[in-house]
Amino acid sequence: MGFENVFVEIAAMLAVVTVIGSIGLMLRQPLIVSFIAAGIILGPSVLGLVAATEPIELLAQMGIALLLFVVGLKLDLHIIRTMGTVALATGLGQVLFTSIFGFLIALALGMSPVGALYVGVALTFSSTIIIVKLLSDKRELDSLYGRIAVGFLIVQDIAVVVAMMTMSALSGASDEATLGWVAIELAARLIAAAALMFVMMRYVLPTLVETMARSQELLLIFAIAWGVGLAALGEWAGFSKEAGAFLAGFSLASTRYREAINARLTG
Amino acid sequence: MGFENVFVEIAAMLAVVTVIGSIGLMLRQPLIVSFIAAGIILGPSVLGLVAATEPIELLAQMGIALLLFVVGLKLDLHIIRTMGTVALATGLGQVLFTSIFGFLIALALGMSPVGALYVGVALTFSSTIIIVKLLSDKRELDSLYGRIAVGFLIVQDIAVVVAMMTMSALSGASDEATLGWVAIELAARLIAAAALMFVMMRYVLPTLVETMARSQELLLIFAIAWGVGLAALGEWAGFSKEAGAFLAGFSLASTRYREAINARLTG
Repeated sequence: MGFENVFVEIAAMLAVVTVIGSIGLMLRQPLIVSFIAAGIILGPSVLGLVAATEPIELLAQMGIALLLFVVGLKLDLHIIRTMGTVALATGLGQVLFTSIFGFLIALALGMSPVGALYVGVALTFSSTIIIVKLLSDKRELDSLYGRIAVGFLIVQDIAVVVAMMTMSALSGASDEATLGWVAIELAARLIAAAALMFVMMRYVLPTLVETMARSQELLLIFAIAWGVGLAALGEWAGFSKEAGAFLAGFSLASTRYREAINARLTG
Repeated sequence: MGFENVFVEIAAMLAVVTVIGSIGLMLRQPLIVSFIAAGIILGPSVLGLVAATEPIELLAQMGIALLLFVVGLKLDLHIIRTMGTVALATGLGQVLFTSIFGFLIALALGMSPVGALYVGVALTFSSTIIIVKLLSDKRELDSLYGRIAVGFLIVQDIAVVVAMMTMSALSGASDEATLGWVAIELAARLIAAAALMFVMMRYVLPTLVETMARSQELLLIFAIAWGVGLAALGEWAGFSKEAGAFLAGFSLASTRYREAINARLTG
């Protein structure tokens, strides 16, 4: 069945989410479980109520970008200095461990080497969004294990993106010269992104934020524009939306309006 | 020109809004002027950048519904008792005065009676959204004149909707029996809406809100669902989205979670 227009559809969806959410609350489930259940029930596999996929897709992407933006906003240089090594070691360690053993198990099950490589890498994925949302709901993002988990997840995301980019290039052309080019291109992108962020954080952002902050509302719109914009840029540059939004938040974490932006975005 | 996808389009729009907003701030203009200017520049009359009209339309409608919802949330029975008569008198007085004199002037300019009636009623419109947004930006919604203005505008909105419904029925069929039916139907709708709100506020909402309030996040989603849902219902029943959302806010104004909802929605 369809609805008169998107507005009515969204209203009906929100009503269903509220009902399922309160049932979940009575059963002592975290809200995110109810939200996923509501998504399954409303989606094409059960009721098929959702016809306006484009606006909902947009809202979902903006929500994810803003969540990662807020996570980035909470990281300051002090945390990176203390957590950076731990996050790098655990994140890369888990990716290497899981993908190598996944690769070997898939090989042992009789898969082709390239297929086994894909399965191995696929096994290393964790859902950053689900974990970050759960930690944020329990107000445990600032705890020691919360910080380690988020750092770990971000490192993992970046590693998986790099692995995916390498693999898709590998399956396309297999001679060694191409592989070299892929590595150079990847390194160039990472360096370009880092250089851009450095220039922004050092010279552009402080004055920009100072101008915006004369109006609290404009500051909020600027923050959303910055988060969504860097997410779009991140995807365009071959990283992920999530990594871009995270970087956008991180770049504002050292300004003195961090708390003001954070309070308005998380409510 | 078009964009890769809606996400990039929204990101670009937000960036333009931020730039124009900060220029406006330097020229000491209120933000809403910059926002309208940004809309004109991005819209089809200048740059024509906006291709994804459906998601943007949806966001705009939800924004308007939530703004009116918040205004309703701020009204409690005490304010209505003190402001009700003033709002009714000024609102209806202005509508009657402007439409009668507009009608006479239009007649004197040589228009047909029905045409002159339309012009007269059209002259009485004020933009509720613009005024409410300006008052809210200046934190003057709670001042005496702010309250009178909002009451006035709501009365005016309802009066104009009633006038429009009567006029469209009048231009369709002109015998007196039909006019009587239109009046009865209109009265029935108003009474049905009032009865529904009374039952809701007296028996259903208090328990419902109490259940939702166990989780702050669910309470917020419930509030949005309630505001957007009543807006959709209001439009379906022949009133406006704005009136429905306003009523939704008003119906929650007497619960003890008013402040919690308000703080999370206005940031």
